[in-house]
Amino acid sequence: MIKPRTPPGVLELLPREQVAFQRMLDTIRRTFEAYGFLPVETPVFELSEVLLTKTGGETERQVYFVQSTGALEKSLEDGGGQGRPEMALRFDLTVPLARYVAEHEHHLAFPFRRYQMQRVYRGERAQRGRFREFYQCDIDVIGKDTLSPRFEAEVPAVINAVFEALGIGEFTIQLNHRKLLRGFFEGQGIAGDQQALVLREIDKLDKRGEDAVRATLVGEGFGLAPEVADGLLAFSRVRSTGHEDALARLDALGAGTPLFEEGRDELRALLAALRAMGVPESRYAINLSIARGLDYYTGMVYETTLDANPDIGSICSGGRYDDLASHYTKSKLPGVGISIGLTRLFWQLREAGLVDVEQSPVDVLVALFDDAGLDDALSLSQQLRAAGLKVETQLEPRKLGKQFQYADRAGIRHVVVRGEDEVARGVATVKDLRQGEQFEVSLDGLADALLARREAAAGAAPTPDSTEGGAR
Amino acid sequence: MIKPRTPPGVLELLPREQVAFQRMLDTIRRTFEAYGFLPVETPVFELSEVLLTKTGGETERQVYFVQSTGALEKSLEDGGGQGRPEMALRFDLTVPLARYVAEHEHHLAFPFRRYQMQRVYRGERAQRGRFREFYQCDIDVIGKDTLSPRFEAEVPAVINAVFEALGIGEFTIQLNHRKLLRGFFEGQGIAGDQQALVLREIDKLDKRGEDAVRATLVGEGFGLAPEVADGLLAFSRVRSTGHEDALARLDALGAGTPLFEEGRDELRALLAALRAMGVPESRYAINLSIARGLDYYTGMVYETTLDANPDIGSICSGGRYDDLASHYTKSKLPGVGISIGLTRLFWQLREAGLVDVEQSPVDVLVALFDDAGLDDALSLSQQLRAAGLKVETQLEPRKLGKQFQYADRAGIRHVVVRGEDEVARGVATVKDLRQGEQFEVSLDGLADALLARREAAAGAAPTPDSTEGGAR
Repeated sequence: MIKPRTPPGVLELLPREQVAFQRMLDTIRRTFEAYGFLPVETPVFELSEVLLTKTGGETERQVYFVQSTGALEKSLEDGGGQGRPEMALRFDLTVPLARYVAEHEHHLAFPFRRYQMQRVYRGERAQRGRFREFYQCDIDVIGKDTLSPRFEAEVPAVINAVFEALGIGEFTIQLNHRKLLRGFFEGQGIAGDQQALVLREIDKLDKRGEDAVRATLVGEGFGLAPEVADGLLAFSRVRSTGHEDALARLDALGAGTPLFEEGRDELRALLAALRAMGVPESRYAINLSIARGLDYYTGMVYETTLDANPDIGSICSGGRYDDLASHYTKSKLPGVGISIGLTRLFWQLREAGLVDVEQSPVDVLVALFDDAGLDDALSLSQQLRAAGLKVETQLEPRKLGKQFQYADRAGIRHVVVRGEDEVARGVATVKDLRQGEQFEVSLDGLADALLARREAAAGAAPTPDSTEGGAR
Repeated sequence: MIKPRTPPGVLELLPREQVAFQRMLDTIRRTFEAYGFLPVETPVFELSEVLLTKTGGETERQVYFVQSTGALEKSLEDGGGQGRPEMALRFDLTVPLARYVAEHEHHLAFPFRRYQMQRVYRGERAQRGRFREFYQCDIDVIGKDTLSPRFEAEVPAVINAVFEALGIGEFTIQLNHRKLLRGFFEGQGIAGDQQALVLREIDKLDKRGEDAVRATLVGEGFGLAPEVADGLLAFSRVRSTGHEDALARLDALGAGTPLFEEGRDELRALLAALRAMGVPESRYAINLSIARGLDYYTGMVYETTLDANPDIGSICSGGRYDDLASHYTKSKLPGVGISIGLTRLFWQLREAGLVDVEQSPVDVLVALFDDAGLDDALSLSQQLRAAGLKVETQLEPRKLGKQFQYADRAGIRHVVVRGEDEVARGVATVKDLRQGEQFEVSLDGLADALLARREAAAGAAPTPDSTEGGAR
């Protein structure tokens, strides 16, 4: 007998949690599609040579390699000296996107708007809330040769629509611009190579605090003048509240280098576009401490936080980059994208008690009194399904109490009962286990009555359930 | 520069093919849910010890093992003598289901109805139409201790609903019963152990033909009397057409052993249930050659074939089994399930020209004349999205001809144009690229007009597109 268990570091859900998770996936997908993004799925494994274009680094140390039995046996026979296996699991969706766009370039229409919602794999140290397998939900717009900054302005509107539809609380999209940052560094006399290093320090403000970061900046490695370090910290403290305030704070930064002014102009244009798209001004803010470590980004950078749960950190991040796939193609492919780490977000929401897993997605259990009623129960179930209801049929007669108990335990709200008497009179009795009430309805009106009750429940309880109809 | 390419044996789709694939997944999911099945997802990898409870065999030879970089480095340092890696990719959804049910037994309500739609991995020899990564879409009903044969009767109704909703042509669900088969073998004096071997030969009838199978059965290994072999082949030739014919053919088999009679009674009850559920009689048939090799099955077995494409083979198979998870738990968990290999099916449909990939899922491109029109285009796009349309906005002004060309290439049917004149008059011009027509509509009526056209198109062309509303 082998103990049934999952490998450490994965989040496996019970069915009704999975329903809630699936609802979030569906909501995100629907919103991405409303903004004209097309679905892409890539294989879970890629050729190691293709996936790991850069050797070394944190990423490669976390990669999972994949080997078929045949290759493994060969490697064992050969004394294991065969080097790394031929394939590896994807660790994000960006490298597969780069490979996909480069491979299929001539079959895609640019700007190419794709979404991708799949699991990725990282051999992280096992730790509470850290997962080795987790969903990423990404969008990217990829241009051929050029991509207007206006695509960077559209992204926060998508973020807004997604989290509005998810209904997990108020949120703020934090905005910064790499050109503004680098332009400011330039103005402070911080040269090209050092800029990336300073960026990385600014990125640690949240974790290390101002004092520690300042000490590093004026310390040996960096050797910045104290007033320069103070200037950087003052700059990184800039936060806006509301649209006009954001514009005012941008103005108040004073004149800067051409790069700085370019960044500021783009940020201003982005704010105007968000207003035109009707994104509520409470949902976005300038936050000049947002750095997003990687050198990769060259324009807008985004982070999104839940107003009531800032401790959760960014739930949706991304930015503008200039060259997606330089390892695979000579074409220049600038883009802008964001990623939602849904597994971690779901886990955090569940920890915070914000995931509703009370109900079953099954609307009705059609009860069965005795074997003679089987055909009627089967046929009635089919009628209800044809009307759009999710139906389970009791297939073996049991005491009615047991059937109610089963439905209750399974979280099924309604039980439809048709005894001899009901059949004779062309009616059905509906037991509502949630409200603890019972009513009789004609067979013709049964489906409509159940649909109406489902709809009313969705409207009454603003759970992720009720976002079907769109924004709230 | 590295050549961007996927590993051999995977099916990667272009975006509009992916849309068609996603539509099929959604349709299957919706149908499974209508029958009260709950979603489950399991990790892509399982502990090798848990996944590979039986050693040897075809399955294990096809397994992909997974190793983190750390484990791999250690193994290389140690000379590779560490044996098989700790984790492996799932090769089906049945073993993970067994592990899942055994692990979470006390948190599940039985009979447990679960669906699972995920990719599985097999290191098959690379071959056209054979995939190393492919989707399986499974349902299973798992009982605790017992499970009524009536659940076996419900399964063909689900198969019928799925393939009706997919709209890929007429199909037949082929039915057989293991008790009928084994009971018949008993009657022919074929003993317990030999039954499984005979079953496996019967299973090869399609591939090897009757003569070859007969030769094997009367040959050295089996040594069946010629009249017994002929009886088996005659039995396996039984096929029904229509409901009454199925009953008549069951009657015509004559009396048998108690096991045989039990199988026949269950088949009759199943036929009655299918009629009660309104499954068209053209959609199911008794086919006594269906054996489904594995010892695993103990009751009903199912295969499903497309009437116009019998060469594709079974597109949905499964059956009843008595003990799902004996490796993991002492609980007896009988069940019944089916599996659709969707990647292979999609590939075959595409080969046969039965996949519609002409259209984009994007309904509208909102055009842009000049920078002054940007706010209007952005705001109009948001209005259309709020009405439920999928909208892409032209963000940089280009010649209108270029914008039409882009939409046409991307498969977007409608382009909405608002020049100064249209803005002044409160209207929009809609260019329908498919019909090659153009019309003007008031801004207030624009969303409704576009929704109506989308609906009309869905109704007119019965592609997988139009199955939204349910069965056709």
